[in-house]
Amino acid sequence: MSRTVSRSAREIAEFLSARIDGSPDVSISGVAGPDGARASDLIYADSLRYAERAARSAAVCVLCTAEMSLTGKTRILVENPKLAFAKVAAWLLAPAAVSSGVHPTAIIAGTARIGPEASVGPYAIVEEGATIGARAQIGAHCVIGAGARVGEACVLYPRVTLYVGVTLGDRVVVHSGTVIGSDGFGYVYGEGRQWKFPQLGSVEVADDVEIGANSTVDRGSLGVTRIAAGVKIDNLVQIAHNVTIGEHTVIAAQTGISGSSNVGHHAVIAGQVGIADGCTIEDEAVCGAQAGIPSGKTIRKGQVVWGTPARPLDKFKEQYACYGRLPDLFTRVRELEEKMKAMQGGK
Amino acid sequence: MSRTVSRSAREIAEFLSARIDGSPDVSISGVAGPDGARASDLIYADSLRYAERAARSAAVCVLCTAEMSLTGKTRILVENPKLAFAKVAAWLLAPAAVSSGVHPTAIIAGTARIGPEASVGPYAIVEEGATIGARAQIGAHCVIGAGARVGEACVLYPRVTLYVGVTLGDRVVVHSGTVIGSDGFGYVYGEGRQWKFPQLGSVEVADDVEIGANSTVDRGSLGVTRIAAGVKIDNLVQIAHNVTIGEHTVIAAQTGISGSSNVGHHAVIAGQVGIADGCTIEDEAVCGAQAGIPSGKTIRKGQVVWGTPARPLDKFKEQYACYGRLPDLFTRVRELEEKMKAMQGGK
Amino acid sequence: MSRTVSRSAREIAEFLSARIDGSPDVSISGVAGPDGARASDLIYADSLRYAERAARSAAVCVLCTAEMSLTGKTRILVENPKLAFAKVAAWLLAPAAVSSGVHPTAIIAGTARIGPEASVGPYAIVEEGATIGARAQIGAHCVIGAGARVGEACVLYPRVTLYVGVTLGDRVVVHSGTVIGSDGFGYVYGEGRQWKFPQLGSVEVADDVEIGANSTVDRGSLGVTRIAAGVKIDNLVQIAHNVTIGEHTVIAAQTGISGSSNVGHHAVIAGQVGIADGCTIEDEAVCGAQAGIPSGKTIRKGQVVWGTPARPLDKFKEQYACYGRLPDLFTRVRELEEKMKAMQGGK
Repeated sequence: MSRTVSRSAREIAEFLSARIDGSPDVSISGVAGPDGARASDLIYADSLRYAERAARSAAVCVLCTAEMSLTGKTRILVENPKLAFAKVAAWLLAPAAVSSGVHPTAIIAGTARIGPEASVGPYAIVEEGATIGARAQIGAHCVIGAGARVGEACVLYPRVTLYVGVTLGDRVVVHSGTVIGSDGFGYVYGEGRQWKFPQLGSVEVADDVEIGANSTVDRGSLGVTRIAAGVKIDNLVQIAHNVTIGEHTVIAAQTGISGSSNVGHHAVIAGQVGIADGCTIEDEAVCGAQAGIPSGKTIRKGQVVWGTPARPLDKFKEQYACYGRLPDLFTRVRELEEKMKAMQGGK
Repeated sequence: MSRTVSRSAREIAEFLSARIDGSPDVSISGVAGPDGARASDLIYADSLRYAERAARSAAVCVLCTAEMSLTGKTRILVENPKLAFAKVAAWLLAPAAVSSGVHPTAIIAGTARIGPEASVGPYAIVEEGATIGARAQIGAHCVIGAGARVGEACVLYPRVTLYVGVTLGDRVVVHSGTVIGSDGFGYVYGEGRQWKFPQLGSVEVADDVEIGANSTVDRGSLGVTRIAAGVKIDNLVQIAHNVTIGEHTVIAAQTGISGSSNVGHHAVIAGQVGIADGCTIEDEAVCGAQAGIPSGKTIRKGQVVWGTPARPLDKFKEQYACYGRLPDLFTRVRELEEKMKAMQGGK
Repeated sequence: MSRTVSRSAREIAEFLSARIDGSPDVSISGVAGPDGARASDLIYADSLRYAERAARSAAVCVLCTAEMSLTGKTRILVENPKLAFAKVAAWLLAPAAVSSGVHPTAIIAGTARIGPEASVGPYAIVEEGATIGARAQIGAHCVIGAGARVGEACVLYPRVTLYVGVTLGDRVVVHSGTVIGSDGFGYVYGEGRQWKFPQLGSVEVADDVEIGANSTVDRGSLGVTRIAAGVKIDNLVQIAHNVTIGEHTVIAAQTGISGSSNVGHHAVIAGQVGIADGCTIEDEAVCGAQAGIPSGKTIRKGQVVWGTPARPLDKFKEQYACYGRLPDLFTRVRELEEKMKAMQGGK
């Protein structure tokens, strides 16, 4: 998947501004989990369980906290080993190119512009007026609609469709099969049938967004569907027309967000969540897996909600605990009724 | 997205058989929401909130009800402004062509027939015996399987797959990534493994159906999966083998309908609904978001159901209101028990 | 969909090691449901309702149990008619080829290897170092990533993406639009944004697996996502990074399995189920439709669970029955309170 560059433990520690304990000259040329690691792979340990696995690992160099002792290893001491590991991996490993150069079978319209060092894979199509930013990689079979804009250093894996006029910021990653800019699901009912409401808006995806495989993002009906910088979206997610998603929010697989709902920044939307139309999910809110947010509802800043209809987690837990004890409650009420009857009979 | 034709307000009023109030000569060349509209865009107002936005809008011509006063605007007076707006938009705006002519890279089998004025995009494939109707547009990278039939004026966005033998009526629209005619999920368990049950049926999609992006419609096992005229299906929807959907029913995103279930006409199935196998959803029934319909269940004509397992909305609300008061009920029962104990002790 | 070979009823009975009752010389050249069958189609009957339809069918030859009398038909007597039907159909019907030969527009990298009698459809791409097994069929527009391995007699329908390094065993079937090997959804939060955790692992799919349309299977982050032999996966299913699925397990449409969860063998996962991260679903367990399994939870061997959060079916039913009677319980408690009040007042 990746081309690796060799770095010494010292260079990695310098990159992280971290202290090093043990030999700084060990050479690192990859990253791995502790069990499958080679000597030259960097590993990390952020829990006791991981420390035990790290101790047994063939890896020589470990990212860990200062408190973690690992005899015989070169330790690079950081506060958050997993975060440091992610940063080093991104620095050390250049991901395999999705495409390389403009393939002779790519169809580039006359008015499309391809930036310097950008590449377009086989059978990809870039329509009239579309622009591909510098160093962007467009995978095989992608379709970049007329007037669409792909920013610098974007990576579109094979078989991504951008409908006309969709814009992606810089460093956006889109996985295979995802469709951005399809018509929103808007109809007006009348005279016994559905009439299509115009779906003429657009989609604007900001910098550093990543979208998984086979997801769908609809264009605005008359406005814009907006995904802010740093948002991460998993596979098979549905984003409807006119939705806005704030910065650095994460949305797990198979979640659906209905028309005109607004999700704030740094929110966490778990898997299979359903957000109906016109909802407001404020900043830093958390929607638990399979939660259902009814139409027009607001989830307050930082609130954690669960269930359908979604309610605050502590309330959900209290109610659910009661739910589990319902059969018992029925028994208790029956006993009370019998005692009451006996008592009234005995009067 | 669209090529527009200029029309006067008078022409639009005539098209709608509507009265006009104000200058009938203003020229209209697009449609928009009130906030982003130019002077030449048609807007509509069907609520007080919209009327205020319309009053402030740069747009000169407004579709609204007779009661709505909008000084200085040309008003076209209709009963249902949103419906009229949808009709005018469809009449005024020719959507951008998905393809144009038969692209030289399209692969058309020798026995396939391409109707007059139909177009087939780059790298699309039309297999043996398939027919493409007059004026139909087949997007780039579509695969039209052997013997499949695409009706007149259909629009298939890029990357749609029709498996062999699938038939689409006239004016069917299918968005990017959707797959129609894949094998149903049918296996017979025996001798410790799953044996594939034959999936030899077909899919018949009638006129004026629209299907969103990345949805899937399976072929019948031995019969036919049928989608009737005017049905509208959103993104990421699953329609299993041998399902039938009645006319003008709408199905929102991420809903799944299992094998051999029948949905009537004019039903409304919200998002993330799960309909198990062998269910009957009668005409005009409404299934609320995330509802779950258990195997073999019937939802009666016009009934509105919610929840999992789904039940009538009023029952759902009554039970759910009780659910929210459960912690309180537990307290009340405990108090009763204490009083009872005191009373019995006091006897 | 299929090319059929003619066989006599005798040959079919021999293939099944089954007894025959009636003329053994009738010629069979297809399979069908009883209603749509021609005289030469094999049908089956495994219930009274099916037997009545079989009696009225034009089909001459019926797979049924010995107890089922069907005057005038040739009966092939088996214990499990549906299973026998599936076996005969697979034996009798060669499915239509997905591709035939290596199409001149397929792009095969110099170091890729294509096995004997394998075929690669138009515009498909086989990248460097990939191998396609003997008799495998790669549909149009498929992308087989660098170093990926497709086993013998696999069938990939059009528009399947295998990311780099993904391996499929023998006889694996993958339907259109499915993506295998996309990056898992792994980020580490720090300094106000999400950092991508490396997604460098792979996906290993064993023999005889079938995966439906538009499903997604993510690669392991540092390890491997594994799907064991005989697993059947429906449409629009999400399998996250580092998940393992045991042999012959079936997973219905729109289910999602989160990171590092393990599902045992012969499990049955119904539609729209959500399994959170780090769960263990033991062998032969059954998760009912729309069930939600919370993070880290274990479902015991053979256990049948329903609901969110999932609980054993009998418990689910008991609690749910109570839930339906909640309004009544509230009334009963209020009556008790009134009686209690009256009693205390009366003391």
